Amino acid sequence: MTGRFPSPPSRDRVRPDVAVVGAGPIGLSIAWRCAARGLRVVVHDPAPGSGASAVAAGMLSPVAEAYFGERQLTDLLLASAERWPGFAAEVTEMTGVDIGYRTEGTLMVGLTGDDLAEARRLWAYQQGLGLPVTPLRPSELRDREPALAPRVRGGALAPTDHQVDPRLLVPALRAAAQQAGAALVPQPVRQLSDVDARVTVVAAGCGAAALTGLPVRPVKGQILRLRAPDGVAPGFRHVIRGYADGEPVYLVPRADGEVVLGATVEERADTTVTAGAVQRLLRAGVDLLPELAEYDLVEAVAGLRPGTPDNAPILGPLPGRPDVLAATGHHRHGIVLAPITADLIADLVLDGVTDPLLAPFRADRFLGLTAGGSPDRTTEGDQWS
Amino acid sequence: MTGRFPSPPSRDRVRPDVAVVGAGPIGLSIAWRCAARGLRVVVHDPAPGSGASAVAAGMLSPVAEAYFGERQLTDLLLASAERWPGFAAEVTEMTGVDIGYRTEGTLMVGLTGDDLAEARRLWAYQQGLGLPVTPLRPSELRDREPALAPRVRGGALAPTDHQVDPRLLVPALRAAAQQAGAALVPQPVRQLSDVDARVTVVAAGCGAAALTGLPVRPVKGQILRLRAPDGVAPGFRHVIRGYADGEPVYLVPRADGEVVLGATVEERADTTVTAGAVQRLLRAGVDLLPELAEYDLVEAVAGLRPGTPDNAPILGPLPGRPDVLAATGHHRHGIVLAPITADLIADLVLDGVTDPLLAPFRADRFLGLTAGGSPDRTTEGDQWS
Repeated sequence: MTGRFPSPPSRDRVRPDVAVVGAGPIGLSIAWRCAARGLRVVVHDPAPGSGASAVAAGMLSPVAEAYFGERQLTDLLLASAERWPGFAAEVTEMTGVDIGYRTEGTLMVGLTGDDLAEARRLWAYQQGLGLPVTPLRPSELRDREPALAPRVRGGALAPTDHQVDPRLLVPALRAAAQQAGAALVPQPVRQLSDVDARVTVVAAGCGAAALTGLPVRPVKGQILRLRAPDGVAPGFRHVIRGYADGEPVYLVPRADGEVVLGATVEERADTTVTAGAVQRLLRAGVDLLPELAEYDLVEAVAGLRPGTPDNAPILGPLPGRPDVLAATGHHRHGIVLAPITADLIADLVLDGVTDPLLAPFRADRFLGLTAGGSPDRTTEGDQWS
Repeated sequence: MTGRFPSPPSRDRVRPDVAVVGAGPIGLSIAWRCAARGLRVVVHDPAPGSGASAVAAGMLSPVAEAYFGERQLTDLLLASAERWPGFAAEVTEMTGVDIGYRTEGTLMVGLTGDDLAEARRLWAYQQGLGLPVTPLRPSELRDREPALAPRVRGGALAPTDHQVDPRLLVPALRAAAQQAGAALVPQPVRQLSDVDARVTVVAAGCGAAALTGLPVRPVKGQILRLRAPDGVAPGFRHVIRGYADGEPVYLVPRADGEVVLGATVEERADTTVTAGAVQRLLRAGVDLLPELAEYDLVEAVAGLRPGTPDNAPILGPLPGRPDVLAATGHHRHGIVLAPITADLIADLVLDGVTDPLLAPFRADRFLGLTAGGSPDRTTEGDQWS
């Protein structure tokens, strides 16, 4: 317990200050930050890192993912991405683990004329927000990535959209949290009363619904992992996002030859891999980067993202339960949002101060919604729909 | 040793009459037939059933696979397919194992006008051989398989082309061989002198090349296994073979919901699964049967078929080695050819009689070819090229 901790020391020396439910990137980052600031932290998870992060691509793309109607989410994504260089350096410095943090930037492309028209509409919106999006002439696009299909009609560069490898990140975060003093308890938490701490943080992804009644629903994503033949690095350096005959797709190259190709967004709760989804992803990927046809297909899996009615996370106390903080609903953004979620939740725990950035993401914006996400009365959440 | 065995009993009671190298469907069928006729049989294989049969679809399709320029192979396929009903009944009677033998017949279809024109050219050839191929009107095609895509332009029925499940068949053959008295030795055979028997049968698939110098080469096949959702049977009953925008593809439905979708034919010796092949197979499959898009993709694997310079098997003594019989090079036909290969090789072992059916498949037709398959002088094998 350090002097920075404002609360009186607990009389029961065994009772933790913070119980974190969920050892994914969000829960582990929060545990790390809280433990590093002197709190006694226990993280509960029977299978750390087995949720959405186990299949996530790891794009840090606040710019490319700045979509119409999600202005407040975009601000949060940008603020978190700004913290990523320091966050990555700290994780690696503390653990010695290379987490695959790469800063080559993201190319956004359109395969057909229609695809390019749709992409340009989005780029104009992103530029209108003042975000760094640089349209490229076809020759510039090919200078940057000669492996792109000749028929790709056009593209733009988002130089500040980076990537990390979640399968390296999550074990590193676990090590960092433990080195900072957090304890991991490999037991499931079936109800909030299963844990005993001054503050409970629910970072259980889709599992938050059953624990809290919050309207968090599973959003299925199917995703493929390819590997360049002969153990060489992929023939492209940037993260590539694009539309290919109307199919949105992304390609994330790793130094070891892996390419992550994703992802579907399906309102389903199963984790089966379907023939149609694999076919569409591969077709779109190969259309954008023909050399992928010769890559090994090494994995096809599905994960469940924690979605919310407005697709934005839920960050802060449960209504009527100031001792229970939600940190869930990160949907497609769990990796990029880990640093800011961890910092701001730690501030809340330590200082009781709610950063203004968190205001749009309060849990009580869904009051009146059931855990299934169906509104039973009009709420401020409607601003997002 | 029964009275039917014409050779004098070996003085060394331990020395087997027959050593079979390879416990795939060919080696096990031969072992079974030889043991059932009273011979002492030992089968050598460190990994029974792990070769081409482990990924094979199990089509028994002498009619649909009657291709131009392969008349003698077609005769052998037809003769073996005739033996399949009895062979399947015997295996099941002996072992109690359901081997997935199904007789609904095979539909041959063409997706586009071009595909149909190509298919019709082949059907005319097959009908010219007197084979049972019945062109179907589009309405008849849909009456038989309502799940076919509306855009499938036409088809024909090969009612005598059936199927079996190789993953059920091979363990059943192993049980049948063992029940008949054959012994399995799980040791690799690195050279022919590793085994000691009156007659050695090399049924080692692609491994035959190294053991015998015969020109057997690996021909890679990538193949997918899908599964109908919710554990129901697939929405079609026939084996479906067809061309889909120029891509030849087949779909084999199993009673348990599995659908085998194959296969590539590649002159490669690796067993990697490539993105391009999976994409093409899925695209062709879904184009012919749209409901496949909703099926689970449960397996994508590659196997190596034992090919020969003329794509026909090698059945009979090695040149200059009457004590060593080849039974290899079955390429895409190992399952359908198992019964006749077993019967005729057993005849050779027991009676020294070469059935006239075997004449075109003698090992000496490749004299002068290296194991790699390159001719170094003109041989009678040229008739096949």
